[in-house]
Amino acid sequence: MTSSTGAPSRLHAEQLDAADPLASFRLRFTIPDPTVVYLDGNSLGRLPAATSGRVADVVGDEWGERLIRSWDEGWMDLPLEVGDRLGAALLGASPGQTVVCDNVTVNTFKLLHAALDLRPGRSTIVAHRGEFPTDRYVAAEVARQRGGAVDWLGPLDPGAAAQVDPVTASQVAGALSDDVAVVLLSVVDYRSAAIAEVAGITRAAHDAGALVVWDCSHAAGSIPLDLDGVGADFAVGCSYKYLNGGPGAPAWIWAAGRHHDAMRNPVPGWMGHDDVFAMGAEYVPAAGVRRFLTGTPSAIALAAVDVGVGLLAEAGMEAVRAKSVALTSYAVDLADAWLARHGASLASPRDPAQRGSHVTLRHSEARALTQALTDRGVIPDFRNPDGIRIGLAPLTTRFTDVHDGIASLAALLDALS
Amino acid sequence: MTSSTGAPSRLHAEQLDAADPLASFRLRFTIPDPTVVYLDGNSLGRLPAATSGRVADVVGDEWGERLIRSWDEGWMDLPLEVGDRLGAALLGASPGQTVVCDNVTVNTFKLLHAALDLRPGRSTIVAHRGEFPTDRYVAAEVARQRGGAVDWLGPLDPGAAAQVDPVTASQVAGALSDDVAVVLLSVVDYRSAAIAEVAGITRAAHDAGALVVWDCSHAAGSIPLDLDGVGADFAVGCSYKYLNGGPGAPAWIWAAGRHHDAMRNPVPGWMGHDDVFAMGAEYVPAAGVRRFLTGTPSAIALAAVDVGVGLLAEAGMEAVRAKSVALTSYAVDLADAWLARHGASLASPRDPAQRGSHVTLRHSEARALTQALTDRGVIPDFRNPDGIRIGLAPLTTRFTDVHDGIASLAALLDALS
Repeated sequence: MTSSTGAPSRLHAEQLDAADPLASFRLRFTIPDPTVVYLDGNSLGRLPAATSGRVADVVGDEWGERLIRSWDEGWMDLPLEVGDRLGAALLGASPGQTVVCDNVTVNTFKLLHAALDLRPGRSTIVAHRGEFPTDRYVAAEVARQRGGAVDWLGPLDPGAAAQVDPVTASQVAGALSDDVAVVLLSVVDYRSAAIAEVAGITRAAHDAGALVVWDCSHAAGSIPLDLDGVGADFAVGCSYKYLNGGPGAPAWIWAAGRHHDAMRNPVPGWMGHDDVFAMGAEYVPAAGVRRFLTGTPSAIALAAVDVGVGLLAEAGMEAVRAKSVALTSYAVDLADAWLARHGASLASPRDPAQRGSHVTLRHSEARALTQALTDRGVIPDFRNPDGIRIGLAPLTTRFTDVHDGIASLAALLDALS
Repeated sequence: MTSSTGAPSRLHAEQLDAADPLASFRLRFTIPDPTVVYLDGNSLGRLPAATSGRVADVVGDEWGERLIRSWDEGWMDLPLEVGDRLGAALLGASPGQTVVCDNVTVNTFKLLHAALDLRPGRSTIVAHRGEFPTDRYVAAEVARQRGGAVDWLGPLDPGAAAQVDPVTASQVAGALSDDVAVVLLSVVDYRSAAIAEVAGITRAAHDAGALVVWDCSHAAGSIPLDLDGVGADFAVGCSYKYLNGGPGAPAWIWAAGRHHDAMRNPVPGWMGHDDVFAMGAEYVPAAGVRRFLTGTPSAIALAAVDVGVGLLAEAGMEAVRAKSVALTSYAVDLADAWLARHGASLASPRDPAQRGSHVTLRHSEARALTQALTDRGVIPDFRNPDGIRIGLAPLTTRFTDVHDGIASLAALLDALS
């Protein structure tokens, strides 16, 4: 991968792009400004080319022309239909367990309460101090509402740029007790991309009588998941990252079939009722995961999610994962070659088997560097206090993007030194 | 209004349309099939003509081209900006008290908990048995979560087609006690359109030390509201009815400024944090109503709401109300003239001062009649068990629509008899 001078060459990046079996997927996205090096597809995924037309159809035809009739003509089924397609393509989920609705905050709130309800007599939530903020806020508040507490894993300072080491089954097992009702963890850490031991942690929790809520926001669409296979309980995730569902696209909930009959929605709404338009006196939850619906879902937003899910389904998660590993490994190689000498340290696992689809670098000037890169049309993400997060979306990121982006960062650091 | 034969004439309807000062607003909407008589704008408002372009801009330019940068370039401020415009145009609200987010179910859940938190030592919620289902389900569940109870107003059978009489201050006062923390009521009843005594009920609740959460879903955009003026506490509403925000458009929350410092969000999310990207250890609520944000809001959906709010702001709520009263009065006149003899009875207040912008008729064959009308391109709404609900959206409904729709119903009933 290096030129004759020992420096990684752009030609090599071009060769990697030429050999990329997923290269043609980039053509399925709208990319109005090809000079932008976009390395933040894990914050907001790019716009699929088909989305504009699909949204225009829902707005113009389904809303504008069919009006209220569209609820009967398809909209009512969208949360479960798109959920099933999402579950099959990305989660390893058989049908009837996935629903697209609300956002990750609201869905995590629902699932933590539901898990506590399924474990009466237990009131502790285990979560990680380095968890994505909304998960921590919700966990703390749900524990307060239930008269319980959160048992926090990990180092005291959650502001650090990365929890590099994956959360392990033995780490979680050390926190489990007869009072733990539920463990809330991310499959892929939002800063470091470290992949938690999903199967082992799920087993350890079950052995201790607890349930697990997996936040898959940075995992769905970037690594293959097998929620059915590992015997998971509940999962949640967003659809505006690797799923390319658009800014503020609705989130999803996955719930294992074995919990369906007993699980409760703590925010019961008319769209999760067994008979929506009966409008009866009592709340009777719909069968299965549909009960996690609250109010009226957005038909426009669901259509946009469907387009993004369809592209990932077509590519296949094994191919997506293979390219993701190649992209992040290439980024790590370039960082080693160009950035390490400037004090930029890798804050993601070096072993690709432990790493999702982004790479975080720590540097004392991370904030200013991120801004300077953005000003030059290279767009990574800053993560407080010292992380430059480089998101590599397998359907749209090229090896030349990785090369050019990290070369730009190297040039900035060269100029600083 | 009657022809020389004594029957209401279509010519008269045409004259009313010709004299309608808001008639030109219908041209600001996309109406692909002009043969449809749409009498359900209070379930799903029509598509504003500007919305398609605005949505295409957000999708293509802001998402597709500017990508993640759009959050800094405007998206972060949209929930409050659109909220302020909505509050000023429709709610009688000064700035900083309205935020657009989530849906009515989730927002009502947040507000009931927030109200209970503001009234420690009190655990009763007063609500109405005839309330819209989601409000009842949420009230019952929040009461359960707080170890309290709902004190239900109204007749035992909430399935009846209409609670015709407006909820009065004295009715609510009769349910108030030292244990009542909050009253949850709709300003406009979803079946009968009866307008509750907003000012009097608010005063009565305050006199008893309780707060009020007003559900304005059927009121916002159909009758002028004066939430600041009446000294209201909290309000919630949807934006897919008279606001024409689209299917599943986000809802809104209004919170009186005097409650801002003390109010809590029971579903605390990162977007409601005081410093969103600090991602600190603790949840620190944003100042003011912004704290009611949960997860990432949809930029596309907010833009669509903004278009609908803009049209109502331009028309002005006094003019909207004047036309609404004329439309519903005309519908009542036609129902009296053509339908009463067939057993269709008015299930809305006869006094326009007590009536919102829809008219409900009761008939034993309401379900079949609604279906038969829909098959003929006349679209009202059926409300279980025997209500035909005729929604009259002042910006888009013509007097000729009212005439033609009720004439179609009369023809169906004539054929039945």
